[in-house]
Amino acid sequence: MQLPKSDAGFHANKATLVDIAQQRMASSLSLPAWSVHQKVAATCRILFGHGHDSGLAGQITARGEQANTFVTQRLGLGFDEIEVDNLLTVDENLDVLSGTGMANPANRFHSWIYRARPDVHCIVHTHPMHVCALSITGTPLKVAQMDACMLYDDVAFLPRWPGVPVGNEEGESITRALGQKRALIMAHHGLVVACSSVEEACIIAIQCERAARMQLLAMSAAQINDLDPDLAREAHDWILHKQRIGAAFHYFARRAGYRVSEHDSKVPMSD
Amino acid sequence: MQLPKSDAGFHANKATLVDIAQQRMASSLSLPAWSVHQKVAATCRILFGHGHDSGLAGQITARGEQANTFVTQRLGLGFDEIEVDNLLTVDENLDVLSGTGMANPANRFHSWIYRARPDVHCIVHTHPMHVCALSITGTPLKVAQMDACMLYDDVAFLPRWPGVPVGNEEGESITRALGQKRALIMAHHGLVVACSSVEEACIIAIQCERAARMQLLAMSAAQINDLDPDLAREAHDWILHKQRIGAAFHYFARRAGYRVSEHDSKVPMSD
Amino acid sequence: MQLPKSDAGFHANKATLVDIAQQRMASSLSLPAWSVHQKVAATCRILFGHGHDSGLAGQITARGEQANTFVTQRLGLGFDEIEVDNLLTVDENLDVLSGTGMANPANRFHSWIYRARPDVHCIVHTHPMHVCALSITGTPLKVAQMDACMLYDDVAFLPRWPGVPVGNEEGESITRALGQKRALIMAHHGLVVACSSVEEACIIAIQCERAARMQLLAMSAAQINDLDPDLAREAHDWILHKQRIGAAFHYFARRAGYRVSEHDSKVPMSD
Amino acid sequence: MQLPKSDAGFHANKATLVDIAQQRMASSLSLPAWSVHQKVAATCRILFGHGHDSGLAGQITARGEQANTFVTQRLGLGFDEIEVDNLLTVDENLDVLSGTGMANPANRFHSWIYRARPDVHCIVHTHPMHVCALSITGTPLKVAQMDACMLYDDVAFLPRWPGVPVGNEEGESITRALGQKRALIMAHHGLVVACSSVEEACIIAIQCERAARMQLLAMSAAQINDLDPDLAREAHDWILHKQRIGAAFHYFARRAGYRVSEHDSKVPMSD
Repeated sequence: MQLPKSDAGFHANKATLVDIAQQRMASSLSLPAWSVHQKVAATCRILFGHGHDSGLAGQITARGEQANTFVTQRLGLGFDEIEVDNLLTVDENLDVLSGTGMANPANRFHSWIYRARPDVHCIVHTHPMHVCALSITGTPLKVAQMDACMLYDDVAFLPRWPGVPVGNEEGESITRALGQKRALIMAHHGLVVACSSVEEACIIAIQCERAARMQLLAMSAAQINDLDPDLAREAHDWILHKQRIGAAFHYFARRAGYRVSEHDSKVPMSD
Repeated sequence: MQLPKSDAGFHANKATLVDIAQQRMASSLSLPAWSVHQKVAATCRILFGHGHDSGLAGQITARGEQANTFVTQRLGLGFDEIEVDNLLTVDENLDVLSGTGMANPANRFHSWIYRARPDVHCIVHTHPMHVCALSITGTPLKVAQMDACMLYDDVAFLPRWPGVPVGNEEGESITRALGQKRALIMAHHGLVVACSSVEEACIIAIQCERAARMQLLAMSAAQINDLDPDLAREAHDWILHKQRIGAAFHYFARRAGYRVSEHDSKVPMSD
Repeated sequence: MQLPKSDAGFHANKATLVDIAQQRMASSLSLPAWSVHQKVAATCRILFGHGHDSGLAGQITARGEQANTFVTQRLGLGFDEIEVDNLLTVDENLDVLSGTGMANPANRFHSWIYRARPDVHCIVHTHPMHVCALSITGTPLKVAQMDACMLYDDVAFLPRWPGVPVGNEEGESITRALGQKRALIMAHHGLVVACSSVEEACIIAIQCERAARMQLLAMSAAQINDLDPDLAREAHDWILHKQRIGAAFHYFARRAGYRVSEHDSKVPMSD
Repeated sequence: MQLPKSDAGFHANKATLVDIAQQRMASSLSLPAWSVHQKVAATCRILFGHGHDSGLAGQITARGEQANTFVTQRLGLGFDEIEVDNLLTVDENLDVLSGTGMANPANRFHSWIYRARPDVHCIVHTHPMHVCALSITGTPLKVAQMDACMLYDDVAFLPRWPGVPVGNEEGESITRALGQKRALIMAHHGLVVACSSVEEACIIAIQCERAARMQLLAMSAAQINDLDPDLAREAHDWILHKQRIGAAFHYFARRAGYRVSEHDSKVPMSD
């Protein structure tokens, strides 16, 4: 579908233009097929380069092939050290099913989210500087810029800090605070992202830290104006278009220098 | 032209000294001849290193050799991945005339600016952090430092966010807001630069983000003082001197590691 | 010890879960045995990459094998240049017992701390940007985020600047201000960390600068909320668990590119 | 000179300890002999890595071997591109005596400072972000941290911006504002450092930007407390000790990757 080569074509209405854009993206943006392991490893590398490194804090999990199994990193390695070969598969109690080492015991609340949200296939939990700094002031994230609209009305806030989340109480309270949203900022603690794909969780996590940084910069200088809610919701859906998220994820993976290696290919592919 | 080797020469008046400086720059600063494709690719690399990277957001276009054609990047690649060989040539409707892939559908408003401003040969549109952070507070850019004088009275502000700019309405409103200026900050969105050359657009874009960062730093700590408008306008013209802009552009291209490769030479040169 | 594969297991109480986590960490996180020299050299490299570089300011000392001897860097080298082979062993008067060059004369206050605190085996003293910026406002560090809880009630503040610390007066006043805590922020000057191991001193120093940066970001935008003191103390002890600190230290050493070289092995190992 | 191995030695008074420290530094810190050209080239590289890069703005000059001649960079090159071989020697009117290309015409005010201040052998002029941001608020630099004491009562402030400094009027007003101090912050413009050696000018320039950054961080969060003037002056002289400045300069040169090359050796050495 192309517009006619005329001024009438140039003045086509917005709905037609949006349709054309969507069709073009579906056909032009071809993405490589990666396994869940590859996507999780790439996400670790990507987030490391976007301010989500804070020593050994932070975990990423994704649903494994078997029900109630999860792919995650080995405790003791930084995000920059993760590759397909050192990922673990664990069960709900964090008992290791395959791989060497142990999972972060603070992963436990992930199991609670997965139980409550069958739509969630990947959870990212990190302590990025600007999300944390914003959170200690008790201020929820304020979405105010177009790219951040992917977070509009989709980031919950837990104002009370329940302490170190090793127990089940924290799993329950975090899951309740998250509700049906894609992300949660936990005061005095950090970020939780829960999405239907690894790619989306990765991009949402990057955008949360970017939006928090922008908010702090703006709040330090002046007051932030509100977005028109209808336009913000429209942008939310436009930006979260699956093909765009996939293209952004694979771009960030290239930028992080992540390369799929030959022996990774034993791991089953996902779309 | 040289000043006499005497104290009288040392005390020459300002007009004489400015003349000498201009003549010297015209003869001493020799710049390589690059094609539009090379300049666009270099600009992508340069802006990537100056805070204009925000994933896949942002587009650069420049007028092509044929009327109503434009050189731009392929959607799905980051600024750091652009080279002459993956640039596209598109028409006003973003239909691809040469090259593989598609243009960013949000490029559409560029066509509107090119129609309204025959003097414009290059448009840069990005979402740099500090421009965006300033914009969400509704505060226009305040030019307050000498280098930033290249922007004095030359950056418009669009306070209302019209949503994702895929349609023609946004093309019209952006073009109207830009007016005859070299740049426009769009609240809740980002930056548009529209200049008579790729080199100038690149340098103006860098300076907008630098000036926005300086403004936020200063506003967070205290109040910003005004410049003398006459001196600011004088500096505006002095700094935008074509030879200086060209020298700065080629310096930044070297610093970004951009190299003109042999097979680029098939592309026609521009001055 | 594993939880039963049942929902009863999944709902185990917090004390059980904490026990399991501690046991797993003790058995899974195996750490290499390094000498004090290696740990001091690695700490220099690590802190260099975490904002603790300020030219030639800053010193690290650790107790040597003989009583009242200390391992430290050579004055004139930056933290990024330190390796096992250029470390010095000095006595309480900073007279060099082995190695080439001299110690920083401002090291003198370390001897006072070691006299007063037999539990201290390593002292880090640096001038990191955010600790210093906070200190010139007379504001003590406010621990408000979970990772920073390792500093809760453990960072003293010396509000009066006594001048350049070359004499014994400064040794006395710094030691008194530090008291029994793990760290001290000295107004208009910088940071002192005094811990029972090199690893802990390194991690505490990193966290002090990170916490100060977070505090400044938050204070510039809004007010910081208090933590629940009981939960903060619980987190303090959990995070300072020796195995976790060791794992974090060795991760940061890898990240800093620190490699133990073959001829380092002549230096006696410590645990 | 060593202190006796006794507790009496340990409790020596401050004057004795300072004497010992000075003697040790004089004998232990041996520094390489570099030519003025090498020091200027190294300073360009060092300042590039410390926030003093702003495109092609900024110049460094040092007195040449002949009276009224000056070593400086070629206009059109960035600080990161300077080496001994592309430096110029110019006279007071910026006519080139040796080397290829032209000097920055905005260098002219340097000649005025050199005429008025025979003690000055090197001038650094740059537009670093934090000095500039502070300057546009009309706030003079406030020295509040120990390392910054090298600037105490030694940085003047010119609150009025006289426009682009190509003429002689600016030379006169800048020289008058600088007075007998080591540095001057020019509102809406940038930094001038004028010192008796290249090494000192380099270190003072680094410290000005660092102190401005610290001041902005602190002012954004709270109010800055004053230093005790007597202690600040004592620290000023201690820190500016020639041997310490030289050691810091050579450390920063190593860190910037600056290497003296073989054919540099044709240039006469200086101490």
